[in-house]
Amino acid sequence: MSAPAPRTRTDTPQPAGPRTASLDRLFRAETVALIGASADPGKIGGRPMVLLKEHFQGRVVPVNPKRDEVAGIPAVPDIGSLDATPDVAVLAVPGAAVEATVRDCLDAGVGRIVVYAAGFGEIDADGLAAQRRIAGMCADAGARLLGPNSLGYINFHTGLHATFSAALDNIWPKAGNVAIASQSGAVGTYIMALAAERGIGFSHFVATGNEADIDVADCIAWLAGDPLTEVIVAYLEGCGDGGRLKQALAAARAANKPVIAIKPGASDIGQAAVQSHTGAMAGSKRVFDAVLRHYGAWPATRIEEAVDIAYACSVAAVPSGPAATIVTPSGGVGIMLADACEAAGLALPAPPPATAAEIRALLPLASTGNPVDTTAQVTADFRLFGKVLDIVADGTACPILLIFMAHMGKTPGVTDLLRPTLTDIAERHRDRLMVLITRAADDFRADMEAQGYLVFEDPTRAVGAVAALRYFGRGQDVADDPLIEIAPVGRTDLDAAAREAVSAAALLRRIGVPDIATVAVSGEDEAVDAAGRAGFPVVLKIDSPDIAHKTEVGGVHLGLKDADAVRSAWRSMMARVTDAAPSARITGGIVSPMLGEGIDTIVGARQDPDLGPVVMLGLGGIMAEALDDVVIAPAPIGMASARAMIGRLRAAAVLDGWRGAAPTDKDALARAICALGALVAANGEDIDSIEINPFRVFPDGGAALDILVRTKEGPATD
Amino acid sequence: MSAPAPRTRTDTPQPAGPRTASLDRLFRAETVALIGASADPGKIGGRPMVLLKEHFQGRVVPVNPKRDEVAGIPAVPDIGSLDATPDVAVLAVPGAAVEATVRDCLDAGVGRIVVYAAGFGEIDADGLAAQRRIAGMCADAGARLLGPNSLGYINFHTGLHATFSAALDNIWPKAGNVAIASQSGAVGTYIMALAAERGIGFSHFVATGNEADIDVADCIAWLAGDPLTEVIVAYLEGCGDGGRLKQALAAARAANKPVIAIKPGASDIGQAAVQSHTGAMAGSKRVFDAVLRHYGAWPATRIEEAVDIAYACSVAAVPSGPAATIVTPSGGVGIMLADACEAAGLALPAPPPATAAEIRALLPLASTGNPVDTTAQVTADFRLFGKVLDIVADGTACPILLIFMAHMGKTPGVTDLLRPTLTDIAERHRDRLMVLITRAADDFRADMEAQGYLVFEDPTRAVGAVAALRYFGRGQDVADDPLIEIAPVGRTDLDAAAREAVSAAALLRRIGVPDIATVAVSGEDEAVDAAGRAGFPVVLKIDSPDIAHKTEVGGVHLGLKDADAVRSAWRSMMARVTDAAPSARITGGIVSPMLGEGIDTIVGARQDPDLGPVVMLGLGGIMAEALDDVVIAPAPIGMASARAMIGRLRAAAVLDGWRGAAPTDKDALARAICALGALVAANGEDIDSIEINPFRVFPDGGAALDILVRTKEGPATD
Repeated sequence: MSAPAPRTRTDTPQPAGPRTASLDRLFRAETVALIGASADPGKIGGRPMVLLKEHFQGRVVPVNPKRDEVAGIPAVPDIGSLDATPDVAVLAVPGAAVEATVRDCLDAGVGRIVVYAAGFGEIDADGLAAQRRIAGMCADAGARLLGPNSLGYINFHTGLHATFSAALDNIWPKAGNVAIASQSGAVGTYIMALAAERGIGFSHFVATGNEADIDVADCIAWLAGDPLTEVIVAYLEGCGDGGRLKQALAAARAANKPVIAIKPGASDIGQAAVQSHTGAMAGSKRVFDAVLRHYGAWPATRIEEAVDIAYACSVAAVPSGPAATIVTPSGGVGIMLADACEAAGLALPAPPPATAAEIRALLPLASTGNPVDTTAQVTADFRLFGKVLDIVADGTACPILLIFMAHMGKTPGVTDLLRPTLTDIAERHRDRLMVLITRAADDFRADMEAQGYLVFEDPTRAVGAVAALRYFGRGQDVADDPLIEIAPVGRTDLDAAAREAVSAAALLRRIGVPDIATVAVSGEDEAVDAAGRAGFPVVLKIDSPDIAHKTEVGGVHLGLKDADAVRSAWRSMMARVTDAAPSARITGGIVSPMLGEGIDTIVGARQDPDLGPVVMLGLGGIMAEALDDVVIAPAPIGMASARAMIGRLRAAAVLDGWRGAAPTDKDALARAICALGALVAANGEDIDSIEINPFRVFPDGGAALDILVRTKEGPATD
Repeated sequence: MSAPAPRTRTDTPQPAGPRTASLDRLFRAETVALIGASADPGKIGGRPMVLLKEHFQGRVVPVNPKRDEVAGIPAVPDIGSLDATPDVAVLAVPGAAVEATVRDCLDAGVGRIVVYAAGFGEIDADGLAAQRRIAGMCADAGARLLGPNSLGYINFHTGLHATFSAALDNIWPKAGNVAIASQSGAVGTYIMALAAERGIGFSHFVATGNEADIDVADCIAWLAGDPLTEVIVAYLEGCGDGGRLKQALAAARAANKPVIAIKPGASDIGQAAVQSHTGAMAGSKRVFDAVLRHYGAWPATRIEEAVDIAYACSVAAVPSGPAATIVTPSGGVGIMLADACEAAGLALPAPPPATAAEIRALLPLASTGNPVDTTAQVTADFRLFGKVLDIVADGTACPILLIFMAHMGKTPGVTDLLRPTLTDIAERHRDRLMVLITRAADDFRADMEAQGYLVFEDPTRAVGAVAALRYFGRGQDVADDPLIEIAPVGRTDLDAAAREAVSAAALLRRIGVPDIATVAVSGEDEAVDAAGRAGFPVVLKIDSPDIAHKTEVGGVHLGLKDADAVRSAWRSMMARVTDAAPSARITGGIVSPMLGEGIDTIVGARQDPDLGPVVMLGLGGIMAEALDDVVIAPAPIGMASARAMIGRLRAAAVLDGWRGAAPTDKDALARAICALGALVAANGEDIDSIEINPFRVFPDGGAALDILVRTKEGPATD
């Protein structure tokens, strides 16, 4: 797949380190020992034996103490008896024998070990302990471990089928440019089989199973540097090391290799199922998807969606822009395609007048806007359809051409007529993304795909795949996004900010986030004095490290117009708060001037247990909260990413001046997001979360109205 | 398809009238005259000739002045020369010859006429005039007209292939229970072909083209009464008569026949394309979809979605409840299925302990919640998977069983093992909806479908189809929904309400919608007096029939606490309104007491140009507006439908007591929706629209705070 040239970026991936390089010998193994090898393809040690014997370009040595040969190949009784150390030992032995066999392998100097057996960390604490012992042995020996509970792996280019998957019984994927890295062997092979039926070819397949050592992130990192891989499909239920996953995604993006990743568990039941399934922590799908999106990977939720996009990436190039021309003999399908394009953010500019005139000269009843609707006139002579395609391809500049061909692709006489035209157009316009939407005969489909055409049956799915290709192109645009610098902050500052609002406000000012001028007061008279100095009307709030939602407990009084109002509010506030939150520590009150109107937002940052620091943005008010209109990104980020977050709010339009109001200062909001992200990223060991609620955005600037800081338990680090 | 028994309902469909009955002779024709018949299957008069000759159980007579016989069948020179009047004349003649040929047919007493030729209303004004003349001739003669610009129609049970579609060149759909009624021939045949490739059988296909007479609504109404049709797929770009469409949908629902309807044109470009395509008014997709939903039809947006749901309806029955059990050998796919089920509103109760124990006795490593995860243990002996299915089917009561079988359905040895088990389970549990998710060999798929299993490859698509079946079952639940009665309202009242706010408030009270006590005032002093009587604080608003959005022009002042505040607000309001809307007629001002806190909503009703009276509900505030969180339904409706509308708001949760607030009186809101709907439905000739913005919902009751009435132009009708 060709794509825009890589650029420099702030989150530059580190060069592939020894951890990644150590997988070369696994994926590109030349000698494999199969321990527990059998000649019966129905057995776990038999299927890989047969596959390796028939297809592997390297050497496979069966290891079996009971046999001299397996499937016609001389066997050795144990791994220590080999004449040379194999690159990889594949363990097709029962779970109970794994630990001893791994020890034998390490003693024999084997550095890459694959364990098929299940019954380890995914089952119970004993299994987990055994798994950890095995992984520990491997780590101590400097060896890498795939599994346990791994379905194995395949290198399609060397025929290295080190897997016992039954999927290969009824489909034989060809070698190609798509790699699959899947925690689940079943999901991975199901994706592989459906994709193979679509004609997709593969470079590598790997099922990481329990991930005692090698995980999906490792595989993505390695595949990013593999010259035979151009597209990566990943399935992961959690991740052991968020930092490595982010580095791997950054490496794939830097190499211009689209990553399509499914992370299931959006539902409560799904989350629980993840945990009962692998024993892995489920992690938040929302945060995972945010991280994927940040690194330009596509967060897929459906298998078919992943297959469609992998197919599109493996056949065609990223389009150079978001404009499409539709050609259709059916007005109805034209409308459906136009709907789908608009929903996907693709523009549909009308062809130039000269081109339109040329079409009408050929087909007087044609509609020559966009969609170009030839009408069913072409069914009388399908060559006319080809001529219109020629005219449109040469007369318009759209980087995307969507061609609905109805049943034409399955009608031999018609495909014979149109094939030369379509081939010529593809040769003349290598820079275009061209999509045929048609019921297609297998040979016509294969021919057209070889020319770079995407072929889809369903119009909406075709547009979905185009939108995904476009997405991968855009992913490169935001990669070069300088981070915002903030002043260093220490644990003492954070602890103070967690205790009292005035220190929290000072913390914000230190990192460049404007707040309102607040004064801490400890009694009614002080409050009245402070209000007089701030100027009426004022806001009075409770100050307590233990009260997160002040409004609910009567801890916020707005628009106090005079001293009497302040006194009365103070008394009522203290009475209600004491009543509603009797155990809360009360530091006192806070007085601040009442601010002008603006749009209230919620800006937060916190440590995600799986994926590290993240920032969060939502709009204020119960409506936005009820709609859960929240956008997340990994931190730290630069202004471009923060602006993109703002744009992804479903109600983003209210910030642009809704109903005649002045547009708000979105850059002030973006800066606040960046600052909180930088703070949480720089103080990962001390800070648990920080939330500004609300951050009010004005036409010029913005201000934090309330802040909540939570530090981590344990000793301060400064 | 079996489904719950029909119930009595308020919108009872009228018995099929003569308009519907008149289509019997078209769809069940026994003799067909093909005018312009040719023996060349590449010609528009040749393809139907060949098809009818080979497949039609009735009699086809070729009409061709230049030949004695066509394709071996004796021809007549003109329609008047037939020995008996045919049921149907199919005109495969050029557009220019249509008008005269229709005249000949009518003169010969033919009562059902099909016109293939294009170039009429979809092209220009001349074409539209010709089309209207032809339709007028037919109407005068009491004849029915299909077309012009129709691809024709098919009765699959009598072999009546009165179509020139090329789709039949490469796919031959079998007879079955699904009917397609499509304005667009190309969309209709594309759906038909994709569905046929999935093994779906058809009763009827009809393409209505320009709909000069017979339209999709006519066809739905007829198909609702056709005993061979059990599922209806419709494609329509607009509709000539909204009332007939609603009656047709009600008839299909009363007959328990699912209707899956695509109405494209969600996008601006799509809307424009609809108009340029057929010359039909696009209509609002949103209102169309609301009407479809109200009558229990499924508003589909994608072709594949329509095919999936038609397939599901044609094979399986509506499930008796929304609970499912998942059985899977793959934990990963189990999670994805669980995610999809939760998103579709399907519950996943865990199996009873005894059932769980039985599974664990068989498979110690199995996870026995829901999903039931057998793990890959079953790949060693697939009979174990069958045994688990037996245990789950007999040990759980879920009306839906989702079975992931990975590659098993395509592996001959495995299908042989599992086929008897699956067949037995289907026989024991005819009341269940059972779904196999697997790559499937054609014969295995066909066998399983014959047993009532749905077979899907993609897990998420399978759950989508299940959700649609469940939807059709629920559609019956809301059908029995008594309407709200309102007091009669005359044009004079409406005109007064359109002019001045106080009359608008009186109108609302008349139809049972509570409002706030408002007083109309004509000057500053009157405003101060009225405020004193209402009790401070008060609200002051501008009263003008010309100002829809009062806030934008400074026409709303809230929380005025004393006489001075009222005076100052009056002056500032008059100055700003005069400035902002210089041409608006100003009736004066309105004073009302300031109300307590509640949730603001927008309730409206209006006449849709295509589909008649509709009601609309949204939440107040710019956030809800920016999110376009609006729900529509055809009017009049009863309380159950109004409550369903409230539930469909994406932010509905704020009405239920968000963040500790008291739940609001949703029934008060529902009554207001019903009342406005009843008003607009009863006064369709006088009222254009009415909007309450906001209608504030309190924990007990609700109140209209502002009302805008628009009456239609023209003379009053009372």
